[in-house]
Amino acid sequence: MRKYIVRITSPDDKGLIYRITGVLYREGCNLTSTGEFVDHETGTFFMRSEFDGEIDRRMVQDTLQNELPGATITITTTEPKDIVAMVSKEYHVLGDLLLRHGFEELNANIKAVVSNHENLRHLVESSGIPFHHIPVEDLTRREHEEKVINVLDSYNPDVIILAKYMRILTPEFVALYAGRILNIHHSFLPAFVGASPYAQAYRRGVKIIGATAHFVNEALDEGPIISQGVLEVDHGHSAEELARAGRDVEKTVLAKALNLVLEDRVFVHGNRTVIFD
Amino acid sequence: MRKYIVRITSPDDKGLIYRITGVLYREGCNLTSTGEFVDHETGTFFMRSEFDGEIDRRMVQDTLQNELPGATITITTTEPKDIVAMVSKEYHVLGDLLLRHGFEELNANIKAVVSNHENLRHLVESSGIPFHHIPVEDLTRREHEEKVINVLDSYNPDVIILAKYMRILTPEFVALYAGRILNIHHSFLPAFVGASPYAQAYRRGVKIIGATAHFVNEALDEGPIISQGVLEVDHGHSAEELARAGRDVEKTVLAKALNLVLEDRVFVHGNRTVIFD
Amino acid sequence: MRKYIVRITSPDDKGLIYRITGVLYREGCNLTSTGEFVDHETGTFFMRSEFDGEIDRRMVQDTLQNELPGATITITTTEPKDIVAMVSKEYHVLGDLLLRHGFEELNANIKAVVSNHENLRHLVESSGIPFHHIPVEDLTRREHEEKVINVLDSYNPDVIILAKYMRILTPEFVALYAGRILNIHHSFLPAFVGASPYAQAYRRGVKIIGATAHFVNEALDEGPIISQGVLEVDHGHSAEELARAGRDVEKTVLAKALNLVLEDRVFVHGNRTVIFD
Amino acid sequence: MRKYIVRITSPDDKGLIYRITGVLYREGCNLTSTGEFVDHETGTFFMRSEFDGEIDRRMVQDTLQNELPGATITITTTEPKDIVAMVSKEYHVLGDLLLRHGFEELNANIKAVVSNHENLRHLVESSGIPFHHIPVEDLTRREHEEKVINVLDSYNPDVIILAKYMRILTPEFVALYAGRILNIHHSFLPAFVGASPYAQAYRRGVKIIGATAHFVNEALDEGPIISQGVLEVDHGHSAEELARAGRDVEKTVLAKALNLVLEDRVFVHGNRTVIFD
Repeated sequence: MRKYIVRITSPDDKGLIYRITGVLYREGCNLTSTGEFVDHETGTFFMRSEFDGEIDRRMVQDTLQNELPGATITITTTEPKDIVAMVSKEYHVLGDLLLRHGFEELNANIKAVVSNHENLRHLVESSGIPFHHIPVEDLTRREHEEKVINVLDSYNPDVIILAKYMRILTPEFVALYAGRILNIHHSFLPAFVGASPYAQAYRRGVKIIGATAHFVNEALDEGPIISQGVLEVDHGHSAEELARAGRDVEKTVLAKALNLVLEDRVFVHGNRTVIFD
Repeated sequence: MRKYIVRITSPDDKGLIYRITGVLYREGCNLTSTGEFVDHETGTFFMRSEFDGEIDRRMVQDTLQNELPGATITITTTEPKDIVAMVSKEYHVLGDLLLRHGFEELNANIKAVVSNHENLRHLVESSGIPFHHIPVEDLTRREHEEKVINVLDSYNPDVIILAKYMRILTPEFVALYAGRILNIHHSFLPAFVGASPYAQAYRRGVKIIGATAHFVNEALDEGPIISQGVLEVDHGHSAEELARAGRDVEKTVLAKALNLVLEDRVFVHGNRTVIFD
Repeated sequence: MRKYIVRITSPDDKGLIYRITGVLYREGCNLTSTGEFVDHETGTFFMRSEFDGEIDRRMVQDTLQNELPGATITITTTEPKDIVAMVSKEYHVLGDLLLRHGFEELNANIKAVVSNHENLRHLVESSGIPFHHIPVEDLTRREHEEKVINVLDSYNPDVIILAKYMRILTPEFVALYAGRILNIHHSFLPAFVGASPYAQAYRRGVKIIGATAHFVNEALDEGPIISQGVLEVDHGHSAEELARAGRDVEKTVLAKALNLVLEDRVFVHGNRTVIFD
Repeated sequence: MRKYIVRITSPDDKGLIYRITGVLYREGCNLTSTGEFVDHETGTFFMRSEFDGEIDRRMVQDTLQNELPGATITITTTEPKDIVAMVSKEYHVLGDLLLRHGFEELNANIKAVVSNHENLRHLVESSGIPFHHIPVEDLTRREHEEKVINVLDSYNPDVIILAKYMRILTPEFVALYAGRILNIHHSFLPAFVGASPYAQAYRRGVKIIGATAHFVNEALDEGPIISQGVLEVDHGHSAEELARAGRDVEKTVLAKALNLVLEDRVFVHGNRTVIFD
């Protein structure tokens, strides 16, 4: 039997779970795990269920939609998603992803890596994955992004991972892939937005540093947060040592967020996320 | 409208959520939050829902029970539970509880404190709570426990908290209050069961210490775990300093576990717990 | 034999430890623990040593100062420091301090508590400590601070603890007690400076919240950080629940920072701290 | 100027730091960082200093030894150490090490990898490192270890890393490389020694899992602990999911411990470690 995931966002109402599970029961969907959440501030209901069954996916979706006309409903299979990663010079987040991918720990296919630098070509190609070097020299920001878009679109990725891609994206670029771009920011957002967060953290003298994985929206470093991690530090850490120590947090936090996204566990709700883990 | 909590444990079956929420819907229960979990290893279904409504609690319970003959079902209100705390000489866990209680942060009434020592009498009585000193001198273990039982039973507590009560309880005592005794053990169980865990931790040279809140069963320090917390330490901590550092973890972990119990969020499942938080 | 703590800040130079320990050795000081740190960015040397001995403290200090003319040197005993706490309405940080103080866990005397509200009087007075209610009604900020200063100065405190004191202090007030005011801020600074950090954290949708203990300087929430702590949260936490969960972090972080200050372990270095723990 | 590290263990005595830094000062060693610790329980003094200078290493060592006849003294350069890694089937710890090594983040040369399985050959060889498959089939434990020893000795490693090597080593093997074998154990020791710690953790129902990096001695899983890390889990984690979640902790904890060892920061003291970080 195939496995499916149904995700529902709806204005809250009485009897929603009863009505939804009624449809699923009658259609022969056998729930294996489920979660619900109501945001009482906005009156919004969220539900994510895993089920198996011999079903007609289209029909289940239509029946649910008839039952809940105001809801947003998706039913997905648990097939691997397609990913393209973008990276600049740092190896650690990308290398970690490639390892997990190579040993089939990610439920995803990394289709390609795009970089504005050349130095990670060997790492990527020795993993059997195409590497596209798109240098920025002599190009306007818009010209560069167009070349990137051409490559991305040739792979039609479900998820684009900014695995330490150190260039700012234009709002037009972000809009093109709305809700599909995942970034790892090397600070505990919203502390230290923008450039050189470790240098900022050093100057501020913090005793804990962190990393944040989030969806990218039009405002830099302000998209919905999926996962955060932290690490204790002290006065003995220079800015460079903070950066080195932070790398392990960055890669762990991104991997955690990516798995949540790959399993369709993350709902975006305004600038917040609702996560069923 | 009154608020209720329904808790259901049942052999897993198809359509359980549909059938349960159907009963609740028809009886006029308005779900405000809900959680389900299936332990696939044992085929056991757990559900906890909060709802409000003008209902006949007895009737809702009977109707649910008819729908699910093999299930264990309880419906409770959100009234404060009655607590008796037992303590030996250390003030920190009890003091923290009394503070929370005094400022109405606990959904509970601390009815009394029982101790085998005298030194915390002022702390307890200045909080307006009866203090029962039951010394162990010249008494057998059984005689002492009988005196304790007499006091406990006069308060009929829903929960008995061992807030650093340093005496071993007999299986008979534990059986009398099965599922109602909450203990804080000053180690990261199952490491360092038994006496002097901080001294054990010092000798073993661990780099992280912890505390564990658990239900007490007949086997010492082996009951179902509710909550655990940890703290990084280093070679500079003597056994005494480990103990001092550990106190903050102990009181935080117990308070967290107690709140989970007071809100009926903890299901015991064999020697494990299922917690809806 | 009495115990002492010597603290030295000096421009870095070759042979500093040799020269310092030479003076201490010849003066009969027996080092029991010691720590050094060099900030290579500014070329600053820090040293803190505990020692015992039958010494003339004045003479040891003068001899050290002659050896290191450019250094800042203090020698203190391990006598308890005098503290005055300032608080508004929330009990949890102050209550925790009073408990530790009452059971002699703090190497300090809490001489008094000052509040702009009345509600914590019983908590404080039942601990045997004077409570000064200084309401703000009908007073300018300056007039109110003058009344507070009068009370503070009558106790001549070594450390002033802002134990959730929710009023902004004037630069003049801060200057009066420079380096002696310890604050607990209920966020993971520098995220969420200013008012209502938990509401800010809720709106931003963070997955970890925190608290920060720091010295107060003229700029709000920007003084040197001593200690920070964090806690994982999720979408299910309302702003109020974030605040409730954060309280345990706040009190633990402040207690940790206070102990470091009471043991003379914290050096302020620009807007950063160097801590020998 | 070359950089050096001096490590001293000595019976505690008055004036030790003065006498040691005196020798170093007169020999032209410029201390750039230093740390000392006294274990008062056993009366043992530990010191680790980094210094640079144009020195005769042999002479500095002899002069120090003359000054402190009862001390153990080593002076090392900061040259990369030689490592051989041993692994069974799991890729994650080894893969992480190879990535760090490949991007020159480790101050070490990974000379070779030895495995009782074949499946990681490509991972290792594509990193340009020799891979030795030594199957156990048809060999006694002793015969297998002899083959391993032959390979190890051909590389003369400073450190042997058990990067998830799932076979038990004989005391003879361990004795041969005493103090040079670093292991990552997939539990929060001393909880869950021995086989299948994640299955043990699942059955015990713990709420936090962990990993432990330690030196190997003759008693299984009981050597001196260098580093530990933890991760919160809940009832929803099966034993397999605990194992998967634990992998990120395992690799991070081992990498942290390895860096401490590579920088000569770890002193073994009985069954404990003293670490200057």
